[in-house]
Order: sequence, then structure tokens, then C-alpha cells
Amino acid sequence: MTAPPSAAPPAAPAFHDVRGRGFSRRSTLDAAWDWIDGRVVPPSARPLPLADCGGLVLAEAVGAVGDWPPSDRAATDGYAVAAADTLGASSYNPVPLMGAVAVVAGDPLPPDCDAVIPYEAAQAAGPFVEAVDAVAPGSGVERRGAWMADGGPLLPAGRRLRPADLGLLAAAGHRALPVLPAPRVRILLAGGPKAGAPEQLGDMLAALVRRDGGNVEAVVPLPADMDALADAFTQPGADLILSAGRTGTGPDDAAPPALAKAGGLDLHGIAMRPGGSAGLGAAGGTPVLLLPGEPMAALAAYELLAGRAVRRAAGLPAALPHATVQAVTARKLVSEIGCLDLHRVRLADDGRLEPAASPGWPGLAAAARADGFVLIGADSEGVPDGVAVTMYRFA
Amino acid sequence: MTAPPSAAPPAAPAFHDVRGRGFSRRSTLDAAWDWIDGRVVPPSARPLPLADCGGLVLAEAVGAVGDWPPSDRAATDGYAVAAADTLGASSYNPVPLMGAVAVVAGDPLPPDCDAVIPYEAAQAAGPFVEAVDAVAPGSGVERRGAWMADGGPLLPAGRRLRPADLGLLAAAGHRALPVLPAPRVRILLAGGPKAGAPEQLGDMLAALVRRDGGNVEAVVPLPADMDALADAFTQPGADLILSAGRTGTGPDDAAPPALAKAGGLDLHGIAMRPGGSAGLGAAGGTPVLLLPGEPMAALAAYELLAGRAVRRAAGLPAALPHATVQAVTARKLVSEIGCLDLHRVRLADDGRLEPAASPGWPGLAAAARADGFVLIGADSEGVPDGVAVTMYRFA
Repeated sequence: MTAPPSAAPPAAPAFHDVRGRGFSRRSTLDAAWDWIDGRVVPPSARPLPLADCGGLVLAEAVGAVGDWPPSDRAATDGYAVAAADTLGASSYNPVPLMGAVAVVAGDPLPPDCDAVIPYEAAQAAGPFVEAVDAVAPGSGVERRGAWMADGGPLLPAGRRLRPADLGLLAAAGHRALPVLPAPRVRILLAGGPKAGAPEQLGDMLAALVRRDGGNVEAVVPLPADMDALADAFTQPGADLILSAGRTGTGPDDAAPPALAKAGGLDLHGIAMRPGGSAGLGAAGGTPVLLLPGEPMAALAAYELLAGRAVRRAAGLPAALPHATVQAVTARKLVSEIGCLDLHRVRLADDGRLEPAASPGWPGLAAAARADGFVLIGADSEGVPDGVAVTMYRFA
Repeated sequence: MTAPPSAAPPAAPAFHDVRGRGFSRRSTLDAAWDWIDGRVVPPSARPLPLADCGGLVLAEAVGAVGDWPPSDRAATDGYAVAAADTLGASSYNPVPLMGAVAVVAGDPLPPDCDAVIPYEAAQAAGPFVEAVDAVAPGSGVERRGAWMADGGPLLPAGRRLRPADLGLLAAAGHRALPVLPAPRVRILLAGGPKAGAPEQLGDMLAALVRRDGGNVEAVVPLPADMDALADAFTQPGADLILSAGRTGTGPDDAAPPALAKAGGLDLHGIAMRPGGSAGLGAAGGTPVLLLPGEPMAALAAYELLAGRAVRRAAGLPAALPHATVQAVTARKLVSEIGCLDLHRVRLADDGRLEPAASPGWPGLAAAARADGFVLIGADSEGVPDGVAVTMYRFA
């Protein structure tokens, strides 16, 4: 029996090819968010050394190991005393302390002592020490378990670890923690003569990925060739892949068909400006977000789509992480019905919001002049002047 | 002539030694801030590769190098046309385009063309392309210099570089930038039996230093021996030194006298709770901040003193970087006259602020339960319930 003649290559998965034709329809941003929330999963928990846990999300509640302090001890430097011995002491009536023992903060409390008087409340009198202030029992003392009792809760599951949490956990004896590790994010950048030169967007996208809790696995060229492109999407090692460029309607816009070939292109064309040629799909089980190559479109598609995917892959809240400012529009912000519009705006000296560029205006120069952006929903024709809106601050 | 007998060692610089005696007075926080603002200088500018510039401060204004785009070009994929040829075109009246040239975004505009119609506004009709919408001259075209004109301003001096700025500067041809480099911050941690175990504060302090724009040069033990301690303060390689521990009134609290010996101890004892045993000085021209070893005192002294020094050494605004929330106290916050008090507080479900711990309560467990802190000035006995105050959010 001989091998059958090679079969025709399998038909590419069905997808709407926009090259040379244009977008016949675009998905809503809500549909894109549903896709991200459904397809991008938080990472599996694993233990990491405490030093690497800052900003990561705790996968399990963490409790205290033993009482802290482990025994009654001095909370301050000074003299350990029996509080009763200081009764009546004042600067007019110094009271000699026969049994006083010099201690430093952290020393166990000597027998028969129940307080520590700080040096400020004592004075030397020849070979003796005199109290110049009375103290109550327990003053200057930390009781066993005062900070935390054995097994008591320290931090809840889901906590994004703050700097001070690292100090607390170190003091509680933890050296490694079960956390959601930062997702490995690959950035693919198209080169070539297209407008906006997406190959120059690597530093911008890497900084944004880090802001959102991702680890940049690699910043590599997006190949122009269809097969090499499909390979780049299926190369293992990344939890999430972002590409910039080659998403449009030109004959060289190979990213969407390559993703369709490598795995699946689920959405291509989002009803948003800028960034409307973005696409979403997966290859080899890894979610892939295709961002436009025009720099402002790439920024908008990162902020509204990719950033959400990175945060979700890091186990962080999906919402935009920007500080918000409520302010009143100084001028009308015009918007297109059926399309979410991202308006770059400036906070004027009078505290009102001035448009810095219309949603369709390309390039990052206007974003640099802007203080942030305002989103006008697809169901709105815009907002007139004098209306309070939310600005998301660029930072 | 013989050498004179060795002279007595020079007297140590005058400083108030609090060991075994206590603080006779403490400096105001304002005096400490004045010291920081006067003694900690922003770094000298130097060029760094663009990839390393995110979050750093631009030392000089940066302008555009050449016009961008360098020539009139297509802003969209589609057909380059003479706009006049599309006059009257609609879906009911398709107009054949004889001179149409397929272009992709970024292509130079072919001769005799002044517009690009997107594929959505065209349709194939046998060998021809037909316009189904009229376009105006300049539509779909980016004019030379539209984003930025040669020499025009891009970003001002003093700008803290945002992710999108890196994209803008890359597109403008910049590969390195004159920035204020991150200061190298050395962290020295006391060990030993003292309360709070400052040797466990390295991860917390390193995370805080990074938050404020510093580079952690080293996290090393604070020697117990006076000479070794003075050496640690004078070892070159750091722009700023923070130590934690050994600042109090016990016999082993060698950090202040060692700094006095190594260079100068300008302030020791700040009228603040917690953190009141902090000290400020310099050795070999490098500012040195002595933080207490008790973890909550170290956190407070970092937030109110060291963080300001790190930000200033990075050329960043000195003010606290925390997000703020205005909220009303649910209960009285008691404070000591003459001492700035840091109250850890929680935002209750009703939006009011509950105290989480009094300023004197040690340990980081209460800070972990808190959402942030409220500062009550030295001139205040506290605030009653129902008063609006500013909470600085822990993050």
C-alpha cells in the first residue's frame, strides 16, 4: 500500500478577511471585554520568595505562625520595674528604684517586673536610678501575642501585596508565599514602511505591560511572512501575546489571517476610535491580542483591550487602573454613534477639560499634550460643554 | 627632632547622645523636611537609552527631529485618488476610478492624488474600482509635519516620562534621552535581638524605595560595632543611605553616634509618632537617614522622611505620592500636642474613617488592616468624630 497523494491543505478556519475589502461590521467593546474575561484566565498560584511578591496577588489567606511577640517583652529602651515601686514618683518627688534593670526594646521582661520606664522618666542619682514619673502596670511592655496571635489572620486571599505587607509577613516568619505569578507577555512588533512604525512601540508597550502587572517575556519582530507569523503566535513560553501592526485592510495586513491559521481569530474590528482594527483570538491555547500599528491606535487598543487582558492574566481587577478626575467639559466632545470614542483631553487652568485631539487624529504628540482621556460610549453623539465627565489620567 | 607623642584622638563632633538618657527635645517634622530639601539634591542629568527612561524625569526639553510624517502620505489603507474624480459618487451612483492606486497606510501619496478612499468606500467592478462615496481633498491623507514639525516642542524639561512618551520619542527618532537617573539607595538593616527585627524590613523598604523612584544599590546588615558602622556609612557607591534600627536610647543604639563620627548627625529625634527616634545626617557628602527598627516606626519614618529624600534624590515632587481620599471620621482621633501623629485608619462600609490603631501601637498588623493613614499636626489635640480629613491610601 502506498501513501495517498498529499491531501489539499485543510481549509483555513472561516474568518472574514478584510484585506482589500474593509470591515463590514465591527464588534462592540462590550463583546471584546466579554471575550477577554472569558478567555484570559488568572495564573495558577505558586510559591515565590517574599522579595519577589511585591504587587502580586496572594492566592490564599495567610495566618500568623506562633504568637508575636513570642513572650512579654520590653517595648522601649529603659528600666524594667515593678510599676508599684514608682507610685507617687514625680520630678518633685523622685523615687529610688532598687530593683530596676536596664533593658532595650525586645528584651524579655525580667522576673517581678511589669513595666518599663523610658530613660526620659528616670534620672541617675549616684549609684541609683530614680523614677521621676509613675507608670502603670503594662506600660512600656508588649504582651505575648499583642501584634498577632498564633494562627490568627494576617492577610486575606486576593490581597495585592503592599510594601508594608512584606514587612509584616517577614516578621511573621514567612519566607515564601503562594501568589499569582506575573504573566509572561510576548510583544510582537511589525516593521516595514507602514505608517506609525510599530517597531518603535516596544518601550511604550513594555512599560504599559509592566504597569498592569505583566512580565515582558520578549519584544520581537512580527514577521511579514504568513507562515513565520503563525509560528510566532504558536511559539511556547508566553501566557499572553500582544502584537502591534498589520491588522488593517491592506494587502500586507497578515496578522489576522495568520492568527486565524495558527489557532483562531474570534473578533476582528472593534467599534472604537482609535484602535478599531484590533483583533482577538488564540493560538495553541494562548490568548493573542492584535493591536493596530498606528501609535495612537495601538495606545488606545492597549488601554481598552490589551491592558484588561494583562490585568486579568495577573489576577488583578479588570477595571482601568488610571487615577480618575471628575471635571466639566470646556467644549463639546463630538462622538460617532455606534462607536466608542476615546478623546484626549487637557485639564485647563480653570479646571475644565479641553479637547486635545479628536479620536481620529493619529500620533502620540497629542497624547503627550493631554492629561488623560475621556470615553464617550457608542450610544452617544457626544457631550456638550459644561457637562461633568470622568477623565482617566495618563501617568 | 622626634615625632611628638600621639595626640589624643580628636573630640567626636558635638551631638546629643541619647543613650541611657533619652531625648531631651525633638526637632519638628518641618525642620526635618527643610533639612531634606536643603541637603538632598536631585541627580545630575545623563543620557540613558530610551528603554530605561520610563518613569524618569526629563532633564531638558526635547524637540522633534525633522517633520513627521516626512512627506504627505496615506493615513489609511485603500485607493489613492484625485478627490475630484469621486464627485457625486454614492452607493446608488458608483463612479469608476481610472487612476486609482492601491496604497497602504504610510505609503507616499502618488502623483496627482490628493486623497485616499478606504476599502469600505470602494467596490470592485470587474477590472475596475468604483467609488461609492465622495471624498474631499486631503481625506485619508497625513500631511508632512502633521504630527510634529521639525524642531517643534515634544516634551518639556521636568516631564516624568509616561509609557506613551516613549512611543512618541521613539517615533521622533530619539534613541537616548537626557534624564535624571534613579538615585542609588543603600539600605542598612540592624540585626540582633531588638524588638521588631529590623533585619526583616529589607523587602518592605526596597519596595518603598522603588515606588519613590530609587534604585536599591544594596541591602546589607547594619554592623553593631561602632567603627564598622561608621565604615558602612562612608562606603562609596550610594547617593542616599537609609538604615533601620539602633536609633533609640539603649546602650546598643550605635547608629546615631556612628553617623556623628563618620560625618555629621544633624537631627536626631523628630516630634512624630511613630518613628520619633529617626535621625538625619551625612557621611562623605552622602545624606544618611536613620530609621527606627520597630517595623511600624520604620514605615512611618520612611513615609514621612525617607520617601521624601528618595523622591528628591530622583528629581520627583517631594509631596507624598499616595492617592488621597477625603472622608469623615467615625470616631475621635486623639493626638498629642507638640507631636505629629500618624493614625492608621480604615474606610468603613459607610465611607467613614475608623481608627485602626493609635499612633503608639507597634507592628505592621494594624497597617495591614488599615486602608491608609491620617496625619494630625503637632499643633492639634486631634479631631472629633464627624470631621472631614485627608486619608493617604496605602497601596
